[in-house]
Amino acid sequence: MERVFVVGVGMTKVGRFFEKHAKELFAEALWKAIEDAGGLRPQAIVVGNMTSSVLMGQDSLGALVTDYSGLRGVPAFKVEAACGSGGAAIYTAFALVKSGVVDVVAAGGVEKLTEANVEVVTRALAQAADADFEVFYGATFTGLNAMLARLYKSLFGYTDEDLSYWPLKMHEYASYNPYAQLPRRTTLKEILESPLVADPIRLFHAAPIGDGAAVIILVRGEERARQVARALGRDVLVELAGVAMSTDSVDLSSRNDLLTMESTIRASREALKMAGVELKQVDYVELHDAFHVTAYASLEDLGFAPKGMAAKLYKEGRFQKGDRPEVNFSGGLKARGHPVGATGVYQAAEAVMQIRGDFPGYKASDPEVALTHNIGGISTIAAVSVFKRVR
Amino acid sequence: MERVFVVGVGMTKVGRFFEKHAKELFAEALWKAIEDAGGLRPQAIVVGNMTSSVLMGQDSLGALVTDYSGLRGVPAFKVEAACGSGGAAIYTAFALVKSGVVDVVAAGGVEKLTEANVEVVTRALAQAADADFEVFYGATFTGLNAMLARLYKSLFGYTDEDLSYWPLKMHEYASYNPYAQLPRRTTLKEILESPLVADPIRLFHAAPIGDGAAVIILVRGEERARQVARALGRDVLVELAGVAMSTDSVDLSSRNDLLTMESTIRASREALKMAGVELKQVDYVELHDAFHVTAYASLEDLGFAPKGMAAKLYKEGRFQKGDRPEVNFSGGLKARGHPVGATGVYQAAEAVMQIRGDFPGYKASDPEVALTHNIGGISTIAAVSVFKRVR
Repeated sequence: MERVFVVGVGMTKVGRFFEKHAKELFAEALWKAIEDAGGLRPQAIVVGNMTSSVLMGQDSLGALVTDYSGLRGVPAFKVEAACGSGGAAIYTAFALVKSGVVDVVAAGGVEKLTEANVEVVTRALAQAADADFEVFYGATFTGLNAMLARLYKSLFGYTDEDLSYWPLKMHEYASYNPYAQLPRRTTLKEILESPLVADPIRLFHAAPIGDGAAVIILVRGEERARQVARALGRDVLVELAGVAMSTDSVDLSSRNDLLTMESTIRASREALKMAGVELKQVDYVELHDAFHVTAYASLEDLGFAPKGMAAKLYKEGRFQKGDRPEVNFSGGLKARGHPVGATGVYQAAEAVMQIRGDFPGYKASDPEVALTHNIGGISTIAAVSVFKRVR
Repeated sequence: MERVFVVGVGMTKVGRFFEKHAKELFAEALWKAIEDAGGLRPQAIVVGNMTSSVLMGQDSLGALVTDYSGLRGVPAFKVEAACGSGGAAIYTAFALVKSGVVDVVAAGGVEKLTEANVEVVTRALAQAADADFEVFYGATFTGLNAMLARLYKSLFGYTDEDLSYWPLKMHEYASYNPYAQLPRRTTLKEILESPLVADPIRLFHAAPIGDGAAVIILVRGEERARQVARALGRDVLVELAGVAMSTDSVDLSSRNDLLTMESTIRASREALKMAGVELKQVDYVELHDAFHVTAYASLEDLGFAPKGMAAKLYKEGRFQKGDRPEVNFSGGLKARGHPVGATGVYQAAEAVMQIRGDFPGYKASDPEVALTHNIGGISTIAAVSVFKRVR
C-alpha cells in the first residue's frame, strides 16, 4: 500500500483575534498550506474543533470553513475529541488518503475562544471532563489538573519551583516563534508570583486561552510527494509514517492510576509500530503540555522518563537542545498557545518544518524522526503521529 | 486493495428515553451489532453525533460511549456534520478499515434530544444553519425548510395534499418496523389537520424529535467477511462498495438554486462511481426525508425523478413496492424517526438488512444494490453510501 506524505503546512499566529471569524482563521491557514504544497488543493477537508457548537452556536463547521475558503463542494466535516480534535483530524485524514478515498486531503484545526468571557470559556473547556460525574459537582478542567499536580508533587517530592522549569523554557522557545501567542521570556520569580488559578497551578503553569488555525496537506504516494517537492526545490520529503489513537475513561475516578495516561502509552506504542520506528530513534517531540504536570506526565508515559522523574530530568537540562529527543521547541501549548482543536495540527506542522529545516523559530538539531502527542481531556483521547524524513 | 464489508448491524428503537443516557443507547446498539457480527469487536469506533456539546454539556463523546460500552482503550472520536453526522461516521469508518489503520471498525451514531424542552432543541437543531446569517435573524430549521416547501409548491403547482402522500406512506411502512418511533398509520385528513409548525409545514410533514443509536461493523477483506457469515450460517455478504461526501454553502442565500441540493448530486455520483454501479441498478434507497419537501428534492437530486416531478410520481405510486428503486421502507426520518447523528447509520443498517433479507419490517423486493442518502443542514453536507450483495 502506498505511503502518505505531508506536502504542505500552514498556520495562523495564535492570539486574540476579535476581528476574525473562525472561518477566516481557517481559510488563512488552509491557503498557506496549499501555497506551501505548490498549489495542490485538497479533495477532502477534516476539521478538528471542540467548541464551535457551544461558543459559536454553529454546527456543520466543516462545510462552513470549506465554503468560506472558496472550496465549496469539497467533502468536509468536523471531528471532535476535545483538545485532541486536531490529532483526531490527522488520524482521520491519514485514513482517507491512505485508503484511496481521496488523493489529497487537508487535516486542519481551528478554534475561536477569546470572544466569550472567561466563565463561559471555562465551562466550554470543562466539557472535556465528565458532565455528570465531574462537571456537575463543580470541577473545572484546571481544577482537575490541579489535583493531579498536587498528587505529582506529593508522591515524588517536588516543590512548585521544581515544576516551573517547564514554563520557563517554553516561554524562551516561544520568543523565537513568530506564530506563538506568548513570544516573550519569563523568570521563575514571575511564574511563581503569578496568580493562583487552582492551587498549585498558577497562571504561568497553564496554557493560555487563544484563537488559531493550522492545516497540513497529505498526499498518497512517494511519486506525487516528490513531484511537489521538486517543483518547490525542496530536497526533503516528510512521511506521515504512523498514526494511532486510544481512549481512557472520561472521569478520572475510574482510572487505575491518576498519574498514568494509559491511552498515551497505547497510542504512542501503536504509532511507532506502524511507522517501524523505535522510541530511541525519535529525535524530536511536540507534546501536549496543557499544564506543567501534563508535560511531565507526557514525557513519562511516552517513555522518555521513568515515572516521577520527568520534572527532575527537565530541571537538569534534559530534552533540550542537543539532547534526544528535543522537545517542544515551538513553545508548546504553554507559550505557542493552545487553540484547542487546532493544537494537534500546529504540532504536526511544527514537526514537519523541523524535519524540513525551515521552522522559523527555535531550531531542532536536524531531526529525522519526529513524534507529536495530542490529547483530549486528561488523555481521555490520545492521538500520536510519527513523521519521518525521506531523502 | 481489499474491499470493505458490513458484517454486523445494531439499532435501538427510536423514541423518548428519559431514563437512558446517550451512552446507554450507544452501548445497546453497539453490542447488538457485535452480536450480529458473531462477536467480532471493533478496533476503532467512529461516533456520529450533532448535539452532545449543547444538549448534554459533553464533549469527548467518542471516549465516553466507548468506555461505557466496556471497550475502554479502543480509538474513538466524534464526527459532526449536523444531521449528516451518521453518514460522515460511515465515510470515516470506511477509510479507517480500507486503509488498514484497523481491521474491524464500528461506525455508529447516537442522539439524545428529548430531555431538553422544545425551544432548546429547536435552537440546537438550528445550529445546522448559518449562525451569523440565518439563525441570528430568527430562522429555525423548520422555518428555512418551510420556505423551500413554499417555493416547491408555487414553482411546480402542488397543493399541501399533493405533498402529503410521502408522510402517509412513511407512517404505513413504520407500522411494520419494530425500531420505529411512530409505528402507526395515519390519514391524509390527520396530516392536513395537524398543527402548523412553519407554514406550509405541518407537524405530520416533519420528522419527529427522538432519541436513538445505531451501529454497523465494517471489516476489510472478503475472506474475513466470509468467515463471519459462515459462522453465523449467512449466505449473503454485504459490501460497502462506495462512499462519498460533498458540501454546499451553509446559508441558503448564497446557493445557485434553492431547490437543487448540489452536494447530494455530487456525493451520489461519486459513491456510485466508486461502487461501479449505475443509477438504474439501484434497487433500494433510504433517503433523508427530514421534511416532505426534503424527500421530494432528494428523489430529484439523486436522479430518480425530473426536477419538480417527484411529488407527482410519488402520489402516482412510484418508488413503492415492486418499483425500482423502492424507497424508505423503514418509514424514513418521518416515521422511523430522526435521532439526528444516528440517522445515517440507521439507514445503513436498514439497507444492509434489506439486502440480507432479514429486515424485520416492510420488506423490499430482494434488493441487490442499495443506496443511503444522509444530509446535514439542507444538504450543506451530503453523505451517500452504496451497498452491494455478494454471494
